[in-house]
Amino acid sequence: MQTLLLNGDDVHENAPMGELVGAIEDAFAAYQRGDAQMPPKSYIDLPQYNGDFRSMPAYLEAEDWDAAGIKWVNVHPDNNDKFDLPTVMGTMIYSDPETAYPLAVLDGTELTMKRTGAAAAVATDHLAVENATSLGIVGAGVQSYTQLEAISEVRPIETVVVSDLDEERVAAFVDRFGDQFDVRAGSIAEAASCDVLSTVTPVEDPIVSREDLGEHTHVNAMGADAEGKHELADEVLLDAKLVIDDYDQTTHSGEINVPWHEGVLDDDDIYGQIGEIVVGEKAGRTSEDGISVFDSTGLAIQDVAAAHVVYEHADENDNGYPFDLLGLAE
Amino acid sequence: MQTLLLNGDDVHENAPMGELVGAIEDAFAAYQRGDAQMPPKSYIDLPQYNGDFRSMPAYLEAEDWDAAGIKWVNVHPDNNDKFDLPTVMGTMIYSDPETAYPLAVLDGTELTMKRTGAAAAVATDHLAVENATSLGIVGAGVQSYTQLEAISEVRPIETVVVSDLDEERVAAFVDRFGDQFDVRAGSIAEAASCDVLSTVTPVEDPIVSREDLGEHTHVNAMGADAEGKHELADEVLLDAKLVIDDYDQTTHSGEINVPWHEGVLDDDDIYGQIGEIVVGEKAGRTSEDGISVFDSTGLAIQDVAAAHVVYEHADENDNGYPFDLLGLAE
Repeated sequence: MQTLLLNGDDVHENAPMGELVGAIEDAFAAYQRGDAQMPPKSYIDLPQYNGDFRSMPAYLEAEDWDAAGIKWVNVHPDNNDKFDLPTVMGTMIYSDPETAYPLAVLDGTELTMKRTGAAAAVATDHLAVENATSLGIVGAGVQSYTQLEAISEVRPIETVVVSDLDEERVAAFVDRFGDQFDVRAGSIAEAASCDVLSTVTPVEDPIVSREDLGEHTHVNAMGADAEGKHELADEVLLDAKLVIDDYDQTTHSGEINVPWHEGVLDDDDIYGQIGEIVVGEKAGRTSEDGISVFDSTGLAIQDVAAAHVVYEHADENDNGYPFDLLGLAE
Repeated sequence: MQTLLLNGDDVHENAPMGELVGAIEDAFAAYQRGDAQMPPKSYIDLPQYNGDFRSMPAYLEAEDWDAAGIKWVNVHPDNNDKFDLPTVMGTMIYSDPETAYPLAVLDGTELTMKRTGAAAAVATDHLAVENATSLGIVGAGVQSYTQLEAISEVRPIETVVVSDLDEERVAAFVDRFGDQFDVRAGSIAEAASCDVLSTVTPVEDPIVSREDLGEHTHVNAMGADAEGKHELADEVLLDAKLVIDDYDQTTHSGEINVPWHEGVLDDDDIYGQIGEIVVGEKAGRTSEDGISVFDSTGLAIQDVAAAHVVYEHADENDNGYPFDLLGLAE
């Protein structure tokens, strides 16, 4: 027995998005049913380096598989300027729950992008209009690509409007997807008028206003991941069927954290958790609904579920690099 | 830049024990001075597999180095019988605190043995008589080897008495160290009458009685790592200069946890934390002292400090296996 090393390319090649969306949906359901364990993220704050580390352990039991692991991930905003390194880097250890053997060590950075796209797709599947053909994306950074890859798995997306002040980023995005979709650059308002909108920016002042949105637009608010960040105007949240991934995480650092702490928005304004919709305890979109919002902070169970899919595929296809880390191979 | 993979042999070869003892002492000092961060261990309990996972993240800043990382470790007592796998397996991610780049992924099993031996040596250095020449070891399992390796770095050990019901284990231990020391099998009482005693067993009923010990024996109680476990009779703890590694961990699951919860022993019976002695806030052994006990549960900062030593040596000696986990190598 050896530990399989899976770099970013391996993760990319072994993460078929349709299957990933299903696994993330399973994870939300397991969490809702109480069949998951997810200790609170623990932080190590290093103000002297303007950075922090987060540890995200989790276990989940889906209907016909279970999985355990931990992601060790950081946020060091000066990395790019000072060291030519990414702000966020992740390393994931994926373990067999029955024996605890470390089955794989994965690039957690690529894995995070994949599972974040897949979470948006799960929400979109339950909350967007059935025949959604247009997708707006605000923010053309590294997280934008998996939004389109994942959401196009659950809706017949034809038209994509991407909005970013950085023209190079927009061009790169158009270049990547131009042969599969009708992709064009546009304003925030143009992106927001689509059937589905994903926002993937780190802003602290909202950039999407209520009037920008279409009558039935579903919004995936993916960007906020820390206190003080939010992308959507308060009126958007107050008017929407508002769905969150986890109460503690979203009130602490999700899209709703600022208005929630200011008292502009309270628990009565939250329609439910995505898990409640996935298991059928609450309805997704109904014919009466106008706009809807999914506030996603990213859960450790998503990483574990994504690692499960990647490991199974890589193992089956002899991808990755086996390494006898623990000296237990014969 | 690549991530260095270090298996058990690499860890063993790059962990010079003298240096390791110094690094663990630095770690205890940093923790005492408030220059360390060590969030509580978080547990994932899997009763269906009779096992658990623990995540142990830490950061510490010593005088001229700092280090960050996380150890992901399990306890699955049925592993040996059912799967021919160790009960405990660890995987460690060692990161650069300044950028968070994962510098190394290490076998955490070998690392744990090394840093546990080193912790006993730090305590022995401060608490044993100066001219200690005899070492008793109760329990000849995997943890016993590093006790002798480490303690012989800080005291002129000549004679070793090893006690274990399993004769094969004893023979293996004698075989390993017979050419360096005068090693022989003996009873628990014979081991306990030495100048230094290390107990490394998982028992729940004490096996070392007060009268077994020599007049000035220093005891390293290394075995207890869970509620209900203890190796030393209550009278030993009550008569000893009693030093712990961490208050929360030892009262929860260390040698003292049973008598502490039964009220046999209270906070007044604890002389201090090892860090207080290392930084000089409290004295180690003085001429008035009789027996002394170090209750060691094992701290995440020890793993990080040990990983620091191993990584630096491996990097310098071109040992280990560089792997471009994050796809950032040029």
